Amino acid sequence: MGLDYRVRCCPDGLMTDRRHNVKVLDCTIRDGGCNNDWLFSHELVGRTFDALVKAGVDVMEVGYWTSPGVYDPATTGPWRFCREDDLVRVVRASDMKLAVMCDMGRIRKEDIPPKGETAIDIVRVATYAKDVPEAVDLLQHCRELGYETFCNVMAVTTCTPQEVDAFLGVLRESAVQHIAVVDSFGAMYPHHVRYLIRKYKNWLRPDQGVGVHLHNNQETAFANTIAGIDEGADFVDATIFGMGRGAGNCPLELLLMYLDDPRHDVRPILELTDELADLRAELKWGYHVPYAVTGWLNLHPRSAIDRMRLDRSAPREFYDTLTANRPRARHHEPRKG
Amino acid sequence: MGLDYRVRCCPDGLMTDRRHNVKVLDCTIRDGGCNNDWLFSHELVGRTFDALVKAGVDVMEVGYWTSPGVYDPATTGPWRFCREDDLVRVVRASDMKLAVMCDMGRIRKEDIPPKGETAIDIVRVATYAKDVPEAVDLLQHCRELGYETFCNVMAVTTCTPQEVDAFLGVLRESAVQHIAVVDSFGAMYPHHVRYLIRKYKNWLRPDQGVGVHLHNNQETAFANTIAGIDEGADFVDATIFGMGRGAGNCPLELLLMYLDDPRHDVRPILELTDELADLRAELKWGYHVPYAVTGWLNLHPRSAIDRMRLDRSAPREFYDTLTANRPRARHHEPRKG
Repeated sequence: MGLDYRVRCCPDGLMTDRRHNVKVLDCTIRDGGCNNDWLFSHELVGRTFDALVKAGVDVMEVGYWTSPGVYDPATTGPWRFCREDDLVRVVRASDMKLAVMCDMGRIRKEDIPPKGETAIDIVRVATYAKDVPEAVDLLQHCRELGYETFCNVMAVTTCTPQEVDAFLGVLRESAVQHIAVVDSFGAMYPHHVRYLIRKYKNWLRPDQGVGVHLHNNQETAFANTIAGIDEGADFVDATIFGMGRGAGNCPLELLLMYLDDPRHDVRPILELTDELADLRAELKWGYHVPYAVTGWLNLHPRSAIDRMRLDRSAPREFYDTLTANRPRARHHEPRKG
Repeated sequence: MGLDYRVRCCPDGLMTDRRHNVKVLDCTIRDGGCNNDWLFSHELVGRTFDALVKAGVDVMEVGYWTSPGVYDPATTGPWRFCREDDLVRVVRASDMKLAVMCDMGRIRKEDIPPKGETAIDIVRVATYAKDVPEAVDLLQHCRELGYETFCNVMAVTTCTPQEVDAFLGVLRESAVQHIAVVDSFGAMYPHHVRYLIRKYKNWLRPDQGVGVHLHNNQETAFANTIAGIDEGADFVDATIFGMGRGAGNCPLELLLMYLDDPRHDVRPILELTDELADLRAELKWGYHVPYAVTGWLNLHPRSAIDRMRLDRSAPREFYDTLTANRPRARHHEPRKG
């Protein structure tokens, strides 16, 4: 593969790739659970945990912490709650860190256990930009309890630059240790990721890590991850076989092969992908036109997810509905020559 | 979508995107036919033609020209041959140009009709680097017959830089009008495309166009196309719903939405994608781990295509077979902290 090595040595920033010791966070069960209400068996989650440990992945985000009363445990799977009696059935001693996500408004401070009473090492709080001050307060509490802290500011593509400045200013003054660029809608092209990673790194403190959490609506999640790594992302999110909400996320196996890091071993992951291929046919993540359309339009994927539950996705009709208020200057005038 | 517009105005080359009046070549039937021996009905090909015309696509590559005796017409569909009596059933007068591909060694000069006797406007010759001189000779003949000429040098990721220099030197001195960067194995990351587009543009004459034909083994075809456009590609290949050999190609609908060009209308394309989704389930293009593994290893996809015909793709076993001769320094040593 002569070209590959030659290009990696090129001094031009545009053409060189910059794989480095990036940390890998797997969120297969947490984000994938958005497709099936977290109804994964303990057995599958245990095998996922084991595979991730063997693969040398740095962090597994196993699910959410959620306060009682927000979801009905009769219809919502255990990984929406991550109670300790469920965790102990799937995790064992390892060097891999274990994370949970908390949604702003779905968790009360008093429902977060002290660090000594759980297998969890890391708390990630998912928040919209407007709620960043409250998220910082919650993460400060988690930090005091002994957790490593991450803040995921969702849907940043809907923010004005001034709104981004504002929340980065708040985060810079906070105890939050890591902040992710989050493409909730799968709307970003690589240049957006480059811009945002640079911006986050410029605004945040040098001791704060910057990551990416990217959705695959337009089949850009992996390439956007590469762009993020090129710009200096410290950690990147991925999921096995790309399982995740809507179109899904960056496939972990693609990322590990790309990173070419001897600390990783992609083979245990490849033992799970056939099984997930069956799940994909059922849960319908991956490339489908309705997801692509909401990604392109920078819209929440919920309408595309609803559409994918129908027999026919009828993407032309779906597109027409979502673009009804956009100008239609698209009179076809083909070019000659 | 404030961020989008802000980023597009950024003066920094790394972050700005550079959508311009790029020409779009659709090869849905030609490349997609590699999955089903070109056994598409005239009715479907006719509807594809109509949709591409309405969408404002510049060129439709409808199939191959192949000399008699190379394939058996009893088992191989009409688009492997593109006989005039098949073409007239699916095309009508339009401003869209019609192309065929010729494989080196599968077409004799005397089997190429004069321009006046066919609906075809463009001949693309697919060749490996070693056969570029013969391809140039064939394309010179096509040019004399009145065709617009394209040369696709396949599998360029397997060439040494010196081999690339050599064939570009031959093409620069030729009558060939357009040359494509071809990622036959889906092995490229965006920085490879950037490097090769720059190189092709530097080496070729200013009046020669440069294009991209990219495969999607690692889900990079669309993002690699964006990288190609950023670096100045004059034309780009795509296929509806990404249908193409193995993992497939850059999805045309993603490309048209991205280009945001008022000459295009994605809606007629979206009327075909549900139908192609059914075909995808049967013909198995799209993201599957065996394709990803051969792409990553910079290998021809044939072993992955064979593997995908089995009930279980067993990617761990497949990976082990293909990497048996690679060094295995992958002792897992997880990081702390």
